[in-house]
Amino acid sequence: MTKSERDSQKSLQDVALIVGSGPGISSSCARLFAEAGMRVAVAARNPEKAVLTALEKTHGVRRYACDASEPAAVAQLFANIVQDVGTPRRVEHNIDGRVPGIFRKSIIEADPVMALETVRNSAFRAFLVGQQAARLMLGNEPDENGARGTIVFTNASAALKGYPSSGAFAMACHAKSGLAQSMARELMPQGIHVANVPIDAAIGWTQEDGTRAHRLAGTSVNDNLADPDHIAQTYLQLHRQHRSTWAFEIVLRPWVEKW
Amino acid sequence: MTKSERDSQKSLQDVALIVGSGPGISSSCARLFAEAGMRVAVAARNPEKAVLTALEKTHGVRRYACDASEPAAVAQLFANIVQDVGTPRRVEHNIDGRVPGIFRKSIIEADPVMALETVRNSAFRAFLVGQQAARLMLGNEPDENGARGTIVFTNASAALKGYPSSGAFAMACHAKSGLAQSMARELMPQGIHVANVPIDAAIGWTQEDGTRAHRLAGTSVNDNLADPDHIAQTYLQLHRQHRSTWAFEIVLRPWVEKW
Amino acid sequence: MTKSERDSQKSLQDVALIVGSGPGISSSCARLFAEAGMRVAVAARNPEKAVLTALEKTHGVRRYACDASEPAAVAQLFANIVQDVGTPRRVEHNIDGRVPGIFRKSIIEADPVMALETVRNSAFRAFLVGQQAARLMLGNEPDENGARGTIVFTNASAALKGYPSSGAFAMACHAKSGLAQSMARELMPQGIHVANVPIDAAIGWTQEDGTRAHRLAGTSVNDNLADPDHIAQTYLQLHRQHRSTWAFEIVLRPWVEKW
Amino acid sequence: MTKSERDSQKSLQDVALIVGSGPGISSSCARLFAEAGMRVAVAARNPEKAVLTALEKTHGVRRYACDASEPAAVAQLFANIVQDVGTPRRVEHNIDGRVPGIFRKSIIEADPVMALETVRNSAFRAFLVGQQAARLMLGNEPDENGARGTIVFTNASAALKGYPSSGAFAMACHAKSGLAQSMARELMPQGIHVANVPIDAAIGWTQEDGTRAHRLAGTSVNDNLADPDHIAQTYLQLHRQHRSTWAFEIVLRPWVEKW
Repeated sequence: MTKSERDSQKSLQDVALIVGSGPGISSSCARLFAEAGMRVAVAARNPEKAVLTALEKTHGVRRYACDASEPAAVAQLFANIVQDVGTPRRVEHNIDGRVPGIFRKSIIEADPVMALETVRNSAFRAFLVGQQAARLMLGNEPDENGARGTIVFTNASAALKGYPSSGAFAMACHAKSGLAQSMARELMPQGIHVANVPIDAAIGWTQEDGTRAHRLAGTSVNDNLADPDHIAQTYLQLHRQHRSTWAFEIVLRPWVEKW
Repeated sequence: MTKSERDSQKSLQDVALIVGSGPGISSSCARLFAEAGMRVAVAARNPEKAVLTALEKTHGVRRYACDASEPAAVAQLFANIVQDVGTPRRVEHNIDGRVPGIFRKSIIEADPVMALETVRNSAFRAFLVGQQAARLMLGNEPDENGARGTIVFTNASAALKGYPSSGAFAMACHAKSGLAQSMARELMPQGIHVANVPIDAAIGWTQEDGTRAHRLAGTSVNDNLADPDHIAQTYLQLHRQHRSTWAFEIVLRPWVEKW
Repeated sequence: MTKSERDSQKSLQDVALIVGSGPGISSSCARLFAEAGMRVAVAARNPEKAVLTALEKTHGVRRYACDASEPAAVAQLFANIVQDVGTPRRVEHNIDGRVPGIFRKSIIEADPVMALETVRNSAFRAFLVGQQAARLMLGNEPDENGARGTIVFTNASAALKGYPSSGAFAMACHAKSGLAQSMARELMPQGIHVANVPIDAAIGWTQEDGTRAHRLAGTSVNDNLADPDHIAQTYLQLHRQHRSTWAFEIVLRPWVEKW
Repeated sequence: MTKSERDSQKSLQDVALIVGSGPGISSSCARLFAEAGMRVAVAARNPEKAVLTALEKTHGVRRYACDASEPAAVAQLFANIVQDVGTPRRVEHNIDGRVPGIFRKSIIEADPVMALETVRNSAFRAFLVGQQAARLMLGNEPDENGARGTIVFTNASAALKGYPSSGAFAMACHAKSGLAQSMARELMPQGIHVANVPIDAAIGWTQEDGTRAHRLAGTSVNDNLADPDHIAQTYLQLHRQHRSTWAFEIVLRPWVEKW
C-alpha cells in the first residue's frame, strides 16, 4: 500500500485506542471494534502478552508499550498512534488500578504508599489519557452522529459506593468518576462524548485455551458474571450514539447482582 | 392466515406494547421496532389520532384505546394484546403525565387536585402497566439474551432533580423512578429487564407534514433537542441487552444541555 | 390571660405544628420543642390517643383532629392553628403512609388501590401540609437566624433506594423527596428552610408503660434502632440552623445499620 | 500540675485535633470547641500564622507543624498530640487542597503534576489523618453518646458534581467522599462516627482586623456566603450526635445558593 493509499484509508476508518489491555474488556472491545471496521490500537505496560499478540494476528490490532501513569509516556503514545494509525476518535481507559497489596485492607492496615499508587493507576492515568485524547479530538470534524470523538472510562462499583475495607479503591474509583463528570460537562458541548461505565460485577473472560474464566459450574451461558463481549457491545453503541441523545453514565450489572 | 399459522408466527416474533402514544418517542419506537421485525401495538386514550392511523398503514401497528390510569382498563388491554398479537416481551410506558394547569406553578399556587392527577397520570399508570407486564412476562421462556421480557419507563429530568415551581411533577417523576428501581431489584433476578430512561431535554419530533417540531432555526440537524428516533435506538439496544450486563438507568441528553 | 397578653405571648414564642402524631418521632419532637420553649400543636386523624392526651397534660401540647389527605381539612387545620396558637414557624410532616395491606407485596401481588392510597398518605399529605405552611410562612419576619420558617419532612430509606417487593412505598417515599427538593429550591431563597430527613432504620419508641418498644434484649441503651428522642434533637438543630448554612437533607441511621 | 493530675484532666475532657488550620472553618471550630470545654490542637504547615497564635492566646489552642501529605509526619503528629494533650476523640480534616495553578483550567490546559498534587493535598491527606485517627479511636471507651470518636471531613461541592474546567479538583473531592464513605461503612459499626460535610458555597470568614472577608456590601449579616461560625455549630452537633442516629453526610449551603 502506498502512503497516499494509507492516508486515504485512515480518513475512511475510525481509529480506536484502548489503554490498559488485558484479556477481559480490552480484548473484547479490540475484537468487536476491528470487526466493526475500526483500526484498533492497544496500549499496555507489557504489549508482548500472548492475548495481545493473538489479537494482532487475528484482528490486525497494533500493540504499544506505555506506562500510562507517566505524562511523557502518554503524550508519546498518542503521537505514535497519530503517526502510525491516524488521529483516534474512540479512546477507552480500562485499567482498574487495584494494587494487590491494598485489596480488602482495613483503613487501619492499608499501606499509604499503595493507597496513593492505587489512585495513580486509576484516576491519574485516566486524566493523562483523557487529556491527550481531548486535545486531539477537538481538531476532528464531527462524524455523521455529530461527534468529534468518544472517550469512555471503565469504572467499578466502588465509584458508586465506598465499601468497607477498600478506602483506597473507593478514592480511586470516585476520583475517576469525578474526572469523567467534569470532562463530560466541559467537552460534550464541544462535540466530544465522554462516558463513565461502572461495571457492578466480577468480569468473566475468555482464557487462552478458549474456555471462559470464572464460568459457573452447570450454566451453559456465563451470565452470572459480566461478560466482556457484551460490555463491548455497549461501548460500541456509545461510540455510535447521536449527539442529540448522549448518555454520560451506564452502570452494567448481571441480572442476579444485588445492588 | 390460519390460527395455527398465526400462532406459529407469534412465537417467532417479539411482541412490543407501547403505552402512551404520541408523535414523539412512542411513534419513533413503533416505527423502529416494526422495522426490526417486532409485532407492535400502541395504546392511547384516543387511538384515532392521525399519527397512529398513519403508523397502522405504514408499519402495521395495531391500535388500542386505553385509559391507563384505570386498573381494569389496563388489565383488559393486556388481555386483548395477548389474544390479538401474543404475549408481549417488550413493554414501554411513555406518558409524562404533566397536567397543563400545574405547569410552572409555585407550590403556593399549585392546585392539589391537579397535583394528585399528575402523579396518577405518570407513576400510577406506570405501576399498572408494569404490574400487568410483569405478570405475563414471568411466564415467558428466556430469549437468546436470557430475558423473559423488558419493561422500559420513560422519565424526565424531574426524576433526577426537583426543580422549583414544579413540585407536583417532581413528585410524579421521582415516584416513577422509585417504582422502576423497586421493580428492577425484584424482577431482574427473575429474568425481566427493567429500565428507567430519564430524558434530560425537550424532545423534538416529526410533525404530520414531515417537518420536525421545535427545529432550531439555521441548524441542519435537529440535535439541540433530544431526537426521538435516536431515543428509540437506545430503547432497542436495551431490549437486546444480554442479561450478563443489564443497564437499569440511562439518562439521555443532547450534547449542549446544561446539567 | 387576656387576649392582648395571649397575643403578646404568641409573638414571643415559636409555634410548632407536628402533623401525623404517633408515639415515635412526633411525640419526641413535641416534648423536646415544648421544653425548648415553643408552643406546640399536634394534628392526627385521632387526637384522642392516650399518647397525645398525655402530651397535653405534661407539656401543654394542643391536639387537633385532621385527615391530612383532604385539602379542605388541611386548610382548616392551619386556620385553626393561626387563630388558637399563632402562625407556625416550625412545621413537620411525619406520617410514613404505609398501608398495611401493601407491605412486602411483590409487584405482581400488590393491590393498585392500596398503592395509590400509599402515595396519598405520604407524598400528597406532605404536599398539602407543605403548601399551607409555605403560604403562611412567607408572611413571617425572618427570625434571628434569618428564617421565616422551617418545614421538615420525615422520610424513609425507601426514598434513597427502591427495595424489592415494596414498589408502592418506593413511589411514595421518592415522591416525597422530589416534592421536598422542589420546595427547597423554590422556598429557601425566599427565607423558608425546607428539609428532608430519611430515617434509614426501624424506630424504637417509648411505650405507654414507660418501656421502650423494640428494645433489644441485653442492651442497656436502645441504640440499634433509631431513637426518636435523638431524631428530635436533629430536628431542633434544623429549626435553629442559620440561613448562611442550611442543610437540605440529613439521613439518620444507627451505627450498626448496613447501607 | 502533676502528671497524675494532668492524666486525670485529660480523661475528663474531649481532645479535638483540627488539621489544616486557616482563618475560616478551622479557626471557627477551634474557638467553638474550646468554648465547649474541649482541649483543642491545630496542625498546619505553618503554625506561626497570626490567626493561630491568636487562638493560642485567646483559647489555649495548641499549635503543631505538620505537612499532612507525608505519612511519617502525620504519624508523628498524632504521637505528639497523644503525649501532650491526650488521645483525640474529635478529628477534623479541613484542607481543600486546591493548587492555585490548577484553578479553572480546562482539561486540555491543566498541568498533570499539579493535578496529582491536588489529589495528594486533599484526599491523600484525609486518608493519612483518618487512618491515624481510626487507629487511636478504636482504643477509646464509648462516650455517653456511644461514640469512640468522630472523624469529620470538610469537602466541597465538587464532591457532589464534577464541574467543567476543574477536573483535578473534581478528582480530589470525589476521592475524599469515596474515602469517607468507605471509612464510615467500616468504622461506624465499630463505634467511630465518620462524616463528610461538603460546603456548597464560598466561605466568608473573620479577618485579623475583625472584619469579615467577602462581606457583601449592604448586608448586616454575612449570610450569602457560608459563615464558618455556623459551620462549626454543625460540626459540634455531629460530635455530639448519639450513635442511634448518626448522619454520614451533611451538605451545607447558603439560602440563596443555586443547586
